[in-house]
Amino acid sequence: MRIVTIGREFGSGGREIGKRLAEAFGTAYYDKEIVAEIARQSEVNEHYIEGIFDRGFGAAVISTAGHTLSPTQLLPAPTMRVLEAQRRVIEKLAERDCVIVGRGADMILKDRKPFRIFVYADEASKLKRCRERAPEDECLTEKQLLKKIRKINKGRKKFYGMYYGAEWGHREEYDLCVNTSGADLEKLAPCIAEYIERWFEGK
Amino acid sequence: MRIVTIGREFGSGGREIGKRLAEAFGTAYYDKEIVAEIARQSEVNEHYIEGIFDRGFGAAVISTAGHTLSPTQLLPAPTMRVLEAQRRVIEKLAERDCVIVGRGADMILKDRKPFRIFVYADEASKLKRCRERAPEDECLTEKQLLKKIRKINKGRKKFYGMYYGAEWGHREEYDLCVNTSGADLEKLAPCIAEYIERWFEGK
Repeated sequence: MRIVTIGREFGSGGREIGKRLAEAFGTAYYDKEIVAEIARQSEVNEHYIEGIFDRGFGAAVISTAGHTLSPTQLLPAPTMRVLEAQRRVIEKLAERDCVIVGRGADMILKDRKPFRIFVYADEASKLKRCRERAPEDECLTEKQLLKKIRKINKGRKKFYGMYYGAEWGHREEYDLCVNTSGADLEKLAPCIAEYIERWFEGK
Repeated sequence: MRIVTIGREFGSGGREIGKRLAEAFGTAYYDKEIVAEIARQSEVNEHYIEGIFDRGFGAAVISTAGHTLSPTQLLPAPTMRVLEAQRRVIEKLAERDCVIVGRGADMILKDRKPFRIFVYADEASKLKRCRERAPEDECLTEKQLLKKIRKINKGRKKFYGMYYGAEWGHREEYDLCVNTSGADLEKLAPCIAEYIERWFEGK
């Protein structure tokens, strides 16, 4: 099985790299559709689910629950349903070779030894990319957009820490960390694909 | 100018990647010889110099000097001479395309926009590599060797924090972070070389 998971800072181009890799490998690419499927299975709305993944939301009760409880012991029922569905959905997708962006796939599939990429960039590049790709954000000032980028990335880190006890974006959790600041991903993605092919050959 | 700098955990194969990249590019490769040249220019012995780079040594006086002093204000004279020679030597080397391993080259050459790699691995892989490559360490038990690996990597981190105010091994300081755990570097190095070539083309 050749599963590639992509952790990514919001605005860093992880989505583009994921798509290009899936294209290079001729495999499926999963991103937002994962959330839609989790919503269907858990009967929780997508906004709440994205809140968990991008804001570490859904476990606020923990902070008032004392230090002796593990983070998953006092989760609200909808959050529990989301986490269960998330695991089911991602494990099902990973029955075939694929590229999965975000949604904790690297953690959930850890035992299957996926190739785990983390994609990041400096703030100027993330701002630029968001500006170019997200017309719905056009009404935000630069300051507001930067605040949004920081908030989501902080939320993703929080989600990993709370739900997996892992440090999101720390090199040890990944096989390759790619800085996309000012980079031409169309040119670089084929090299990453080649790297991954050879990495799997050696396993 | 195409300068490649390689930060690396001790035992992770940064040296091997560096050599293979220099070979692929047909450029010079600098590693231990940097220390010899710094020793010559600073008239400080190599052991002391390696102590600075690998143990954050040479600035112990700071911890007793109060919080208002910057780390470089109260350095012993030999350490100052080493840092000055280090800068001179590395800037001189970087007048031509080359691959430089360690010794703060990524920090010293920052303004010249080198391609900055960080090479790391899990402890099992680092142990295995050290065992295979360093006959002089054959007398160490596994526990002793692991202690040595951890100590040097902790020292390198300390050196970066103290002398550059930067976090050694943190993704933001690098363009690519490569996990070599269980990896076949002979197979992977050409992909990294290709990635770097294209990265420079895009700049």
